[in-house]
Amino acid sequence: MRIFTHTIRVYIEDTDAAGIVYHPNHLKFFERSRTEMLRECEFTKTTLDNDYDLRFIIKDISTNYKAPAFMDDLLEIKTTLEGHTPTRLLFAQEIYRSQTLIASAKMTIVCVNNAYRPAPLPALLLEKLTTF
Amino acid sequence: MRIFTHTIRVYIEDTDAAGIVYHPNHLKFFERSRTEMLRECEFTKTTLDNDYDLRFIIKDISTNYKAPAFMDDLLEIKTTLEGHTPTRLLFAQEIYRSQTLIASAKMTIVCVNNAYRPAPLPALLLEKLTTF
Amino acid sequence: MRIFTHTIRVYIEDTDAAGIVYHPNHLKFFERSRTEMLRECEFTKTTLDNDYDLRFIIKDISTNYKAPAFMDDLLEIKTTLEGHTPTRLLFAQEIYRSQTLIASAKMTIVCVNNAYRPAPLPALLLEKLTTF
Amino acid sequence: MRIFTHTIRVYIEDTDAAGIVYHPNHLKFFERSRTEMLRECEFTKTTLDNDYDLRFIIKDISTNYKAPAFMDDLLEIKTTLEGHTPTRLLFAQEIYRSQTLIASAKMTIVCVNNAYRPAPLPALLLEKLTTF
Repeated sequence: MRIFTHTIRVYIEDTDAAGIVYHPNHLKFFERSRTEMLRECEFTKTTLDNDYDLRFIIKDISTNYKAPAFMDDLLEIKTTLEGHTPTRLLFAQEIYRSQTLIASAKMTIVCVNNAYRPAPLPALLLEKLTTF
Repeated sequence: MRIFTHTIRVYIEDTDAAGIVYHPNHLKFFERSRTEMLRECEFTKTTLDNDYDLRFIIKDISTNYKAPAFMDDLLEIKTTLEGHTPTRLLFAQEIYRSQTLIASAKMTIVCVNNAYRPAPLPALLLEKLTTF
Repeated sequence: MRIFTHTIRVYIEDTDAAGIVYHPNHLKFFERSRTEMLRECEFTKTTLDNDYDLRFIIKDISTNYKAPAFMDDLLEIKTTLEGHTPTRLLFAQEIYRSQTLIASAKMTIVCVNNAYRPAPLPALLLEKLTTF
Repeated sequence: MRIFTHTIRVYIEDTDAAGIVYHPNHLKFFERSRTEMLRECEFTKTTLDNDYDLRFIIKDISTNYKAPAFMDDLLEIKTTLEGHTPTRLLFAQEIYRSQTLIASAKMTIVCVNNAYRPAPLPALLLEKLTTF
């Protein structure tokens, strides 16, 4: 399975008074990258909502912070779909600055309907994600 | 007309790598304070949406930054309703740390319906705000 | 050991287009609460930096999302120091809206010097935190 | 003088419960674009700090919101240096989604030294910005 790579520039908005990227912002970087991976599969949160009445929620996320990231850094976020069930996606993601691992995370994403009940992922999306 | 005062603690999330509160975050502080002023008038964005099918949008905001604010600062935000039309509220707001003026702003808030067209403010809200 | 409880109001800035609190913002709520627990122990990040040349970094954080939180919610964040080493603090934190568990997390915080190397926590802080 | 154009994708992190981009985030988009314009002039906030001991602060910013922006929008931010003094830069910026003007702003940026006193902009930067 191919790893999806997305590049993100660090701006001052991402940093805090310690001079490093503020730790919840790594989760934003992870989500941007999953969103771009979806887009490469020709799905967006907007179309998922409008066409399927579905959305994604985060069930759990576990992050390890390995090294600080700084303003103006150009980061590479690597995303792998590690597993899935009919209603869930399990992702592993890593943030790198060149060869330096900044952070790694694993998270469970659940597909829910408009009543926030688990609902099967669109077959087309699952096919595209698993053959990515 | 009484000035509404709301107190906000600065956390590391509000700061940036320059060691000061990141400038768009002052707008968050202003909005939190307007929200609390509304709550004192027994209105929330949630009830405005659910009971009246109305919401507020920002038309314009002009901010002057006078002094930096820092992590752990305890800030006082002073809010004054300076004027209104049937569909608009004009606010003046200031952020202070003790006697030091951190920032001041003026903004126009428009009441809109669910088609994002200007709509009259609820009479009860306008009465409460203008006799505040 | 006493549980430290801190109350946080949800503002529109905390929400996203799905109408719920955006998932990285729970980490902000957790950090605000740890900061207030420190303050109750008469320590702040500012004094830790100025007086001891120390700061805290997050080593890892694992979060379980149980239920969505919404605009205008009044949330209670419960913080427990679950363990410690000379250079590390292990916290467990939970977010509640009344009796509803919104999210729970465990995280490892490391005390580092200005070269970002692990450094012993101030004895006074450790004593205050462990007898809290 | 050439207009600098920078493209920004809207992610769910940028939106709020009203389903639109949260109004302080437009200021983030403006700053990202000014940062990229600086980078095109071969200057970054990091080098400005390290090599010149200088930084930029915002003196004032006035924003007009014209139309909402939505998740997944691809926005174009147009930046023009409208004027300058030895220590100040006056920018005009606009956000577009295709032909739709989303927001426009004018802001005064002041170059300050490490005591936060106004200081002359590096001659090289001013030359590059004004001949851009």
